[in-house]
Parts: sequence; structure tokens; C-alpha cells
Amino acid sequence: MDGLALEVLEANRRLGASGLVTQTWGNVSAIDRARGVVVIKPSGVPFEELECASMVTLSLDGRRVAGTLRPSSDARTHLELYRCFPQVGAIVHTHSVMASAWAQAGRPIPVLGTTHADCFAGDIACTRPLTPAELGESYERDTGRVIVETVGRRDPLQVPAVLVHGHGPFAWGVDVGAAEATAQALEVVARMAAATLWLNPAAGDLDSTLARRHFLRKHGAGAYYGQADPRAGTAG
Amino acid sequence: MDGLALEVLEANRRLGASGLVTQTWGNVSAIDRARGVVVIKPSGVPFEELECASMVTLSLDGRRVAGTLRPSSDARTHLELYRCFPQVGAIVHTHSVMASAWAQAGRPIPVLGTTHADCFAGDIACTRPLTPAELGESYERDTGRVIVETVGRRDPLQVPAVLVHGHGPFAWGVDVGAAEATAQALEVVARMAAATLWLNPAAGDLDSTLARRHFLRKHGAGAYYGQADPRAGTAG
Amino acid sequence: MDGLALEVLEANRRLGASGLVTQTWGNVSAIDRARGVVVIKPSGVPFEELECASMVTLSLDGRRVAGTLRPSSDARTHLELYRCFPQVGAIVHTHSVMASAWAQAGRPIPVLGTTHADCFAGDIACTRPLTPAELGESYERDTGRVIVETVGRRDPLQVPAVLVHGHGPFAWGVDVGAAEATAQALEVVARMAAATLWLNPAAGDLDSTLARRHFLRKHGAGAYYGQADPRAGTAG
Amino acid sequence: MDGLALEVLEANRRLGASGLVTQTWGNVSAIDRARGVVVIKPSGVPFEELECASMVTLSLDGRRVAGTLRPSSDARTHLELYRCFPQVGAIVHTHSVMASAWAQAGRPIPVLGTTHADCFAGDIACTRPLTPAELGESYERDTGRVIVETVGRRDPLQVPAVLVHGHGPFAWGVDVGAAEATAQALEVVARMAAATLWLNPAAGDLDSTLARRHFLRKHGAGAYYGQADPRAGTAG
Repeated sequence: MDGLALEVLEANRRLGASGLVTQTWGNVSAIDRARGVVVIKPSGVPFEELECASMVTLSLDGRRVAGTLRPSSDARTHLELYRCFPQVGAIVHTHSVMASAWAQAGRPIPVLGTTHADCFAGDIACTRPLTPAELGESYERDTGRVIVETVGRRDPLQVPAVLVHGHGPFAWGVDVGAAEATAQALEVVARMAAATLWLNPAAGDLDSTLARRHFLRKHGAGAYYGQADPRAGTAG
Repeated sequence: MDGLALEVLEANRRLGASGLVTQTWGNVSAIDRARGVVVIKPSGVPFEELECASMVTLSLDGRRVAGTLRPSSDARTHLELYRCFPQVGAIVHTHSVMASAWAQAGRPIPVLGTTHADCFAGDIACTRPLTPAELGESYERDTGRVIVETVGRRDPLQVPAVLVHGHGPFAWGVDVGAAEATAQALEVVARMAAATLWLNPAAGDLDSTLARRHFLRKHGAGAYYGQADPRAGTAG
Repeated sequence: MDGLALEVLEANRRLGASGLVTQTWGNVSAIDRARGVVVIKPSGVPFEELECASMVTLSLDGRRVAGTLRPSSDARTHLELYRCFPQVGAIVHTHSVMASAWAQAGRPIPVLGTTHADCFAGDIACTRPLTPAELGESYERDTGRVIVETVGRRDPLQVPAVLVHGHGPFAWGVDVGAAEATAQALEVVARMAAATLWLNPAAGDLDSTLARRHFLRKHGAGAYYGQADPRAGTAG
Repeated sequence: MDGLALEVLEANRRLGASGLVTQTWGNVSAIDRARGVVVIKPSGVPFEELECASMVTLSLDGRRVAGTLRPSSDARTHLELYRCFPQVGAIVHTHSVMASAWAQAGRPIPVLGTTHADCFAGDIACTRPLTPAELGESYERDTGRVIVETVGRRDPLQVPAVLVHGHGPFAWGVDVGAAEATAQALEVVARMAAATLWLNPAAGDLDSTLARRHFLRKHGAGAYYGQADPRAGTAG
């Protein structure tokens, strides 16, 4: 557990210095599937003041099993995602400016180029607004549910982020590093897409074959980006 | 008094490094209600050159009671706000770029998402333009009056900032930390709102129940954000 | 002379770190009116590599009187301004992004708020395009002439910057510090004005009485901003 | 070879800190024409983790001749450019935000001002989209081919960058320093051009005589910018 808590602590500290968050508006969590526990940032504590002892460990049904502080107010959203997405090992939530602007605009981010396609196998979807009934006691859990509903039948690791309508982005991945990278990529893609549509309001989606090729260059069995394949040698 | 002067000094230094101000275009003040005195930045002194002895202490009616330098040219605006808003302990004025752009545009910033709703219980209002009569001898005091008029019957701690038409933002709070956080949040919210309206000119206000819920997560007796409530324990 | 060369050297180094210039796209000069000589940055030398010995001293008619390097390719523009504006002690030229965008758009920056009015007594004018005849041998000098033509009968210290059509800003002041401050203020004002017009395409000019008041708060005999007046004491 | 590998290593490290790239989305290469080998960044390795031993050396036909890591997935694009542009000594590829936005918009960047004209002798062209046949096995090589097709009969050193449709910019130069400078200039020019067209949708191209003059101030036999010409002396 110490290992996971330390990893989540360090990821939260990096998030605080990343430019993706203002003040305490964001949080990172990760799950230990074997033990069924999630470590998450405590609520409202400045990133630079976090210590290992500040981290909060929760069971998947929301009981605090380690730590003394109150967990992030978004904890129930994280837990819902871990329950429904067994592939997911870590979650990053931010209010990064341009991703949040798309969320406030209620628009999915279309696949306008290869930067997007390298990271996301399709649009970055935006949830529907929550209904009045979803704004009650279980608001944070319902936020998780509407994210799950939005991902639908797609593989959450292929579309590793969703914009919550009127709120902001949740990003995830197999581990902390992947979730952090997605949260950062999402903000860059959000900025690039907004500028693209300003320069050309009729800019179309990237050709789907090209988009697929770029995603598969980096993900899955046929990936040839990076150093994963020890047989690598010649260019391309 | 030394304690308050030091606090205001440090807040002004932080403001100078915050990215919210250019050159000397901004100032922080705070009030000691028991003694009825306000400490404020001196006029035109670069933030990085400020020392404890530079700070100026004023009575609520504008007499200098400590310090040798001339106070900020905006001092009378601050004093008017302290006189009319007894809840307020500190004030931050900046010309931060996007908040000032909304002020120059003469538009209130609507509640387009939860980032806004977390910090402000409603629109961030923009004052009416000052009348010719308000541009005379008592211009700075009249600027304070028009801010007070704009807040109206609302609780100034629930709407802790106003945009002065054609000028820029004034933010405040119960103490220096709260006022600083609001000035920063305002700039981020201003940027996010402008981008939102670009992406969707018809973007509507956040559902008022959701907005209220977010504000009350962080403010008031029922707040469950942060670590204030020692009974805290389980998620959400 | 050493004093002036050192001052210009340091100002060029600051410019290189200011965010207003990319690569070598900018320069600072200053004049010693008593001796009739101008010190300016050498052409194409990276800001961080500048040394005292790199600086170039020119007579007002363009002869090199000290230094071994070739002066900035904009030197003849600077010299023309010094010849025609006897009040001016220093000049800063940049290609800062938003000021250059206004210059490329061929639009003067209107007085949309007090941030602008604090620094400039009126619009920041944009020159007419140069004529074909002005693009010949004396192109750089003609650039200076068209700036002078654009300032016209106004006091160059009241409107201390001009946008050269299709090129970028030239800013000046009584001394190096004033010229630097104006170049920086110009970029911020340019950004703020663009955002303002996006938020409200019909945003009008600031009331001229208010604009005048703000300019005179900081400039001229009646200025009450800053610490210049030793009689200063009470607020406002 | 060590010399070139070190140079490419350092250029890749600078690129990682330049603000032009996010994560590993970019790469620098350089060629030793005498030996017919190209040194390039390895695929997917974070810039700050690069060491001399990480660099990959390829023959012009894509065989790895030194290094143990897999080369950048864009290596075949670089190789195609080196084969077709004998004047080119180094290539920089990024996904810098505004240049990529123009690429995603499918628009060439017009010559709107002297900042552009100082660096590029004409529009920064955008390729046509690749055809379905070009998205197969030889996708990366075909990307190079469409860049070459887009440059056409122009001198690649006069138009030292192209936007790949739906992807992003490739920039080049006689050596690493020139290619880096162009990649950076391109991003600034892309930002400036977008802002210009926002401020004035009808902004016209810079007068072609003026554009030519600015390009030739810095490039070619008659250049009088910088310190290259030892006969330099008087201003202008």
C-alpha cells in the first residue's frame, strides 16, 4: 500500500506543478485491484503541502481504510469509474482551461488531426447534462455513472477521457503515468481543436483510416511507436 | 499592526509574481477591524522592491496613520468597500488580462460551469459606467460606491468580485488568502468563459441547482469540501 | 559613454528575457543628447551573448563612432526618431505577438479601458503602408519617417508607441526604463483589446474624461500616482 | 559521427524544453552528407532521458548503422526529405499548437507581415491530404513525398517548412541551428497570423517587394542583417 500511496502522492504533486490545475481544482487516484482499494488526494489540501500521510485510502464502496483526512469531494466519481472500468488503474481529474471550456460548451472534441488520433480512438465525448434527480445526495456518484454511460460500449482505454457537461475533464489509464499523460494530451488537443475550428469552421474530421493508423502506431499489439518491441531495428 | 503589515506585504509580493499583474498595476490591502485601520501597498512601487516599511496604514476615513509613502492611488476605492462591506477583511485589485477584457467589454461573466460555481454564487457582475459627475475629485471613492451599488443586496462574500466597467476587477474575501484566491479564480474563470462562448455562442448558464450545489460544497455550514469538518471520514 | 553603453546592454538583455521577443527580433537603443550619440544593439547577436563591447555607438547621421560590430538593421529607423523627437531618450523595437498582429491587421488600438489610458493618451496609431518608393535604399529611414508622420503634431511622450503597418511596434520614452515599460504595456494592452473586441465587437472607446484622468494620474504636473511628490500623504 | 550524434542529442534536449513539444511529440535529426548517414531521436523516449547512446544512426535507405534503439516513427519521413533536398542538413518535427492548428485547418499561412517575411520567402504551404493509397505500409515515406511535392520547384531553404495536412509542421535548414530556429519562428508566425486574421479578416498579404526585401535582408549574397559581412560598419 505504501508503494501506491507514494505513487499517488507524487502524481498529485506533479499535477499541481503541471499547469493543468489552479489552486486545488484537481486530483489523482489509483487502484490496487488485488486488494480492492483506491488511494486518492485529500479534499482541499494544496498540492505542495501533500505528504504521504495526507493520502486517503478507500475501499471500492467508499469506506476509508487508511489515512485521517477527508478524501477528495470527487472520490465517489472515481470509485464509480473503477467499479465499471476494470481495465482502469488510475484517474486524473482537472479543470484545465480549454478542456473545461469544451465541457462548458457541451461539445465533444472531434478528431481534427493526428495529435488527437495518437492518443484517442475517436471523439472525446461530452456527457449529457445531469438530470435534476442526479443532482441530489448521490451527485458525485451520478457524475461517474453519466461518464460510464457516455463511454458506452467503447473500450475505456481507447477513449481514455470524457468531458463532464458544464464541469470538466476526467482522464484515466492503465496506470498513473498513462492517466497523467492523457490529461495533459487532452488539454493540448482541446486548445489545438479550438484554434483549428477558428481557422477553418468547416474543418473536417481526420480521415478515419489515418486516425486509426495513428492510434494503432502507439497502442495495441501492432504498435511500432516507442521501444516496447525488442525486435525493433530499421526505421518505420 | 506589524503582523497585518507583514501579511499585506507578503500578499503584495505574491501578487507581483502571480502572473495577474503587469508592472505596478495592482494592489492588496487588508483591514484590522478592531483598530479600524487598513494596510495597503504604496503607490507605484515595484512589487519586488516592497519592504515592511513601505506599507501604508490608513484610517477608514483616509488619514495616513503609519508609513511614509503615498498609498495606492486606488486606496479610496478600497476604503469605501471596507466601510460598506463589514464582512470583508482583504481586497485585491488587478488588471489581469481576461478579467479586464470582460470589464472593458462591459459584460458580466455568466455562470457557465462548475469552476465558476465553486467560487461565485452567481454572475460576476460588471458595474455601470461612471457618470461624468463621478469622474471628478472623488473618482476613486465613487469607483468604490459603484462597486457597492453593483453588489446591491447580495452578500459580498457570496459574490466576492466585481468588474469595474472599462477598468478591471476588484476581488475580496474574509482574509488575504481568500481575496487572493478569488482574484486568481476570477482570471481563470474569465478565460474559460470567453473560450466557452467562442466554442458555443449559445452556451447556457449552468443549471441553478447544480451551481448552488457546487457553491455550497465549498461555502457555508453544509460545506463538505476541504478538511474543515473534523467528523469527515467517508468519501463524498 | 560607458554608462550609456552599459545601460543599453542591460536593457537589451532584459528584453531578451522579457517574453516580448523571439530569437533576435528586437532591439533597444538610447541617446546621449549632449554628445549627440546613440548606443544600439548589434545586428543579429543573440541577447544572451551580448557584452559591453558588443554595443555599437552611432552618430545621429549614422556613422559608427564606437564598437566593431554592425549595428541593428533597424538603426536608421531609431536615428530618424531621435532626430525628429527631441524629447525621446530611448527606443525599444519588438515583434511582440499581439502588438505585431494589430500592426499586421493595419488597425490602431483603440482606448478601450483604463489600462490603456494609464499609459497612452489616445489610440496607439498604426502607420500607413510604405509606398513602393519608400521600400528602396532608404527603407529603414523611411520607416522612421512614416512613424514620425503618424505621430504628427501629438507629443511623442503622450503617445509613446506606434505600430508600423505590416511590421510591428516601436516604443519610446524619456529614458530606457520608460521605453521598456511602454513596450511591455503595449503588448498587454494589445492582448486585452483583442479579447475585449471579441467579447463585445461594439465595445466603445473609454469616456474621454475618464481616459484623460487616468493618463494624468500618472503623467504631467498634476500626477498623483507613485512617489514623486514628497508632499504626498493621505489617500487618493 | 560522435560529433553529429552529440549535436542531435543536444538539439533534441533543447526541443524538449522549448515549449514547442508536448511529451515525446517531436524529433530532430541531422545528416552527415559525406558519410550518407542520418542521426535521429529514438522513438518514444522522453527528451530529458536522452543520452548520447540513445541516438540512432540510419543510412539514407533506412538501415540502422549505429545505436540500439528503434528510431523515431517519423524517421522515414526525414529520410525522404534528405534524399530529395540535398541542401538540407537538419530537420525538426513538432506538434506545436498553432502551427498544427493551421495544418489541421488545411490552410497555408499567408505572408501577413515582416516577421514572416524575415524567415520564409512566401506562404508556409500546407500539403494536400494523403490519399488512401498513401496511408498504407509506406505511410511515413509517403508523408515525406507529399512534403516534397508541396515544395515543388521552390528552393527548400527559402521556404524551410511545410504543414502536413491534418498532422503538423516539418521544418528544416542547412544545419541544426537553422532548423530549430525555423521551427520556433513558424510557431510564432502561426500565432501572429491567426490573431491578425481575427483582428482583420481581410488582412492582405504583405507587399511582395517589402516581403522580398525583408527575406533578402537576412538571406543570400546581399544580406545585411547580422555580422556575417566583415566589411560592415555604418548603420543600415
